[in-house]
Amino acid sequence: MRVHGFVRVAVTLCALNARARADDPLPSWNERASKSAITSFVAKVTEEGSAYFVRPADRVAVFDNDGTLWCEQPMYFQFLFALDRVKALAPRHPEWKDEEPFKSVLAGDPKSLAAGGEKAAAELIAATHAGMTTDEFNAAVKEWLRTARHAKYNRPYNRCVYQPMLELLAYLRANGFKTYVVSGGGVEFMRAFAEEAYGIPPEQVIGSAGVTRFEERDGGPVLVKDPKVLHVDDGPGKPAGINLFIGRRPVMAFGNSDGDLQMLQWTAAGPGPRFALLVHHTDADREYAYDRQSHVGKLDKALDEAARRGWTVVDMKKDWKRVFPET
Amino acid sequence: MRVHGFVRVAVTLCALNARARADDPLPSWNERASKSAITSFVAKVTEEGSAYFVRPADRVAVFDNDGTLWCEQPMYFQFLFALDRVKALAPRHPEWKDEEPFKSVLAGDPKSLAAGGEKAAAELIAATHAGMTTDEFNAAVKEWLRTARHAKYNRPYNRCVYQPMLELLAYLRANGFKTYVVSGGGVEFMRAFAEEAYGIPPEQVIGSAGVTRFEERDGGPVLVKDPKVLHVDDGPGKPAGINLFIGRRPVMAFGNSDGDLQMLQWTAAGPGPRFALLVHHTDADREYAYDRQSHVGKLDKALDEAARRGWTVVDMKKDWKRVFPET
Repeated sequence: MRVHGFVRVAVTLCALNARARADDPLPSWNERASKSAITSFVAKVTEEGSAYFVRPADRVAVFDNDGTLWCEQPMYFQFLFALDRVKALAPRHPEWKDEEPFKSVLAGDPKSLAAGGEKAAAELIAATHAGMTTDEFNAAVKEWLRTARHAKYNRPYNRCVYQPMLELLAYLRANGFKTYVVSGGGVEFMRAFAEEAYGIPPEQVIGSAGVTRFEERDGGPVLVKDPKVLHVDDGPGKPAGINLFIGRRPVMAFGNSDGDLQMLQWTAAGPGPRFALLVHHTDADREYAYDRQSHVGKLDKALDEAARRGWTVVDMKKDWKRVFPET
Repeated sequence: MRVHGFVRVAVTLCALNARARADDPLPSWNERASKSAITSFVAKVTEEGSAYFVRPADRVAVFDNDGTLWCEQPMYFQFLFALDRVKALAPRHPEWKDEEPFKSVLAGDPKSLAAGGEKAAAELIAATHAGMTTDEFNAAVKEWLRTARHAKYNRPYNRCVYQPMLELLAYLRANGFKTYVVSGGGVEFMRAFAEEAYGIPPEQVIGSAGVTRFEERDGGPVLVKDPKVLHVDDGPGKPAGINLFIGRRPVMAFGNSDGDLQMLQWTAAGPGPRFALLVHHTDADREYAYDRQSHVGKLDKALDEAARRGWTVVDMKKDWKRVFPET
C-alpha cells in the first residue's frame, strides 16, 4: 500500500507538473523573479474586485521594438535594409558610385561610411525611404525580409524575434491587454512585418514617421513619402508619440535602452498599478552582451533608473530558456 | 372564417412590422436610397463566402466630425471653445484687454475679430490650446462641455450630435467595423468627448495635432502642449493622417465638406468594395442649410465628385427622421 500510495502520489505530481507546463503561458521564461513579477502583476490587475483592477479598455501595454522584441545587433535592422536598398537601387542611380555616402555603401566600406556620421545616415534613409509611394515602400520592405538573412543567425530578420517576448505578447493579449509597438524605428517599416511577426496590427504600431503627400495620379490617388521628418519616436518622443497615437497612458511598458527611459517613466508615473521592464542583453553566446558603452541600444541611465524605481530588469542569459523561435 | 383569417393576417402583419421596427438598426433614417445603400453595402461585405466579403480586421470606417457627426454651425465648436476660453483666462492676462485678437473677443466684437482673419484665429488657438499640460487641457475641454450651451439648441455641444449618425456608428460596430473619427479638429479636443458621445475610444480619434514636449516636474513627468503645429488633418492631410495613425485604407468613409474630399477619394480608390458618403446639410428648420457658398463646411467640389463617382449623398431634410437625440 505504501508503495502503491507513493506511486499514486508520484503519478499525480507528474500529471500536475505536466499540466502546469502545458498551462504555462510563458514556457520560454525560467522560473525566476522577472517571470513572477510579470505574472503576479497581470493577475493583480485582471482580478475583478481587486483594489488593483484595471478595466479592459485601459489595459494598454507598449513595447519598444529594436532590442526588445527583435535583435538590434550588429546594427539596427532598418539601417541594414537601407544599405541593401542602396545596392538594389544603384543601377537606377549611376551617380551614386562617385557620391558619398552611397559610394562607401556600394564599395562595402563601413569605415568611410561611419566617418559620414549622422548626416550620412540621414541621407541614406532619405534616399531609400522617400520619393516613392507608401505601397511601393511596403513592397520593398517585404521583399527584403523575404530575401535578406541575418549574418550571425542565417535567418530572415523577422525571425530574429525573441521567443519569450512573443509569448509575453500573447499572454498579455489573452489577459485583455492591447499590445502596441512604440519604437524609434520607422512606422511604415515596422508595419510591413509587425502583424505577422508579433500579431500586432498596423494601427497599433507607433514609430518615427516622415511626411506623406497626397497626389492624384493616372492610376488613382497615392501617398508619396517625402524626405521630411514628422515625428522622431525616441526618448522623450516616445511619450509624445503615445499621447498622439493612443491618447491614454499605458499600464505596462517594455524597453531595453536609454531611448525607452521616458516611455517607462511616463508609464510608471500614472496613478494605480503600473509595470515597467527592461531587457538587459547579457547573453554573448546566444545573442549579444551590451549595455552602458554600446553604440546601438545603449543602456545606461535607464538601468540606473530601474534600480532606483524597482523596475523589472530581465537578465537575458538567466531569465530566458531560449532566445529565438525554432527556425 | 374569412374575417377571422383577415384579423389573423392583420395581426401577423402588425407583429412583423413591429418586429421590423424593433430590429431596424437605423430607426432615425427614412426608408430611402441613402439608408438602403448603407445597409446593402454592409450586408454585402459581411456575408461570408460573398465575392465582396471583407475580413473583420480590414473593416475600417472613418468619419469626419464637424458637420458629419456633430453640428458645425454657426461656427466650428472648437473655435467657440477658444473664444470662451479667452474669457475664462482673461483675469490671468490683464494685457489682453488692449491686445488683438483678445481685445475683440473680450469686447464681444465678432466683426473686428473676423477682420483679423486666419492670423487672429491661429493666435487664439495658440493662446488657448498650448502652454499647458495635456491633462490640464483635457480638464478645460470637459469643463466647457459641462457648462457651455449651443445658442440655437440650448443644449451642451456634445449633445448636438446627429442621432442618425450615432445609430450608424453602432450599426457598423455591430457588423465588425472599427469606427474612427478623422477630423480637422484638434485630436485632444475631440478625445475629451468622443468616447462618451460616439463610443469611439481615444486611440480611434485622429485629428489635427500640435507638438507636445516631455518635461520632468516635481509631481512627475508631464506632456506640455507647444504652440507648434505637427499635423493638419484636413483635405489632403486626411489620407496622410489615416496612413500615419491607422496604416491601412478604410473600407467606408463619411464626410460632409470639401475638407473630406481626399479622404473619400483615398477610401474609394482602394481595391474591392468601398463606400463613400456625404452628409448634405439641407435642413434650415431643424438644423442648417448650406453647401457651395458656406464659410464653414463648404461643400462644392466634393458634391460634384460625389455625382461623378456615384457616392451616396444624404439629404438631411428628407433622409433623416430626426436630427438630434432627445435632450
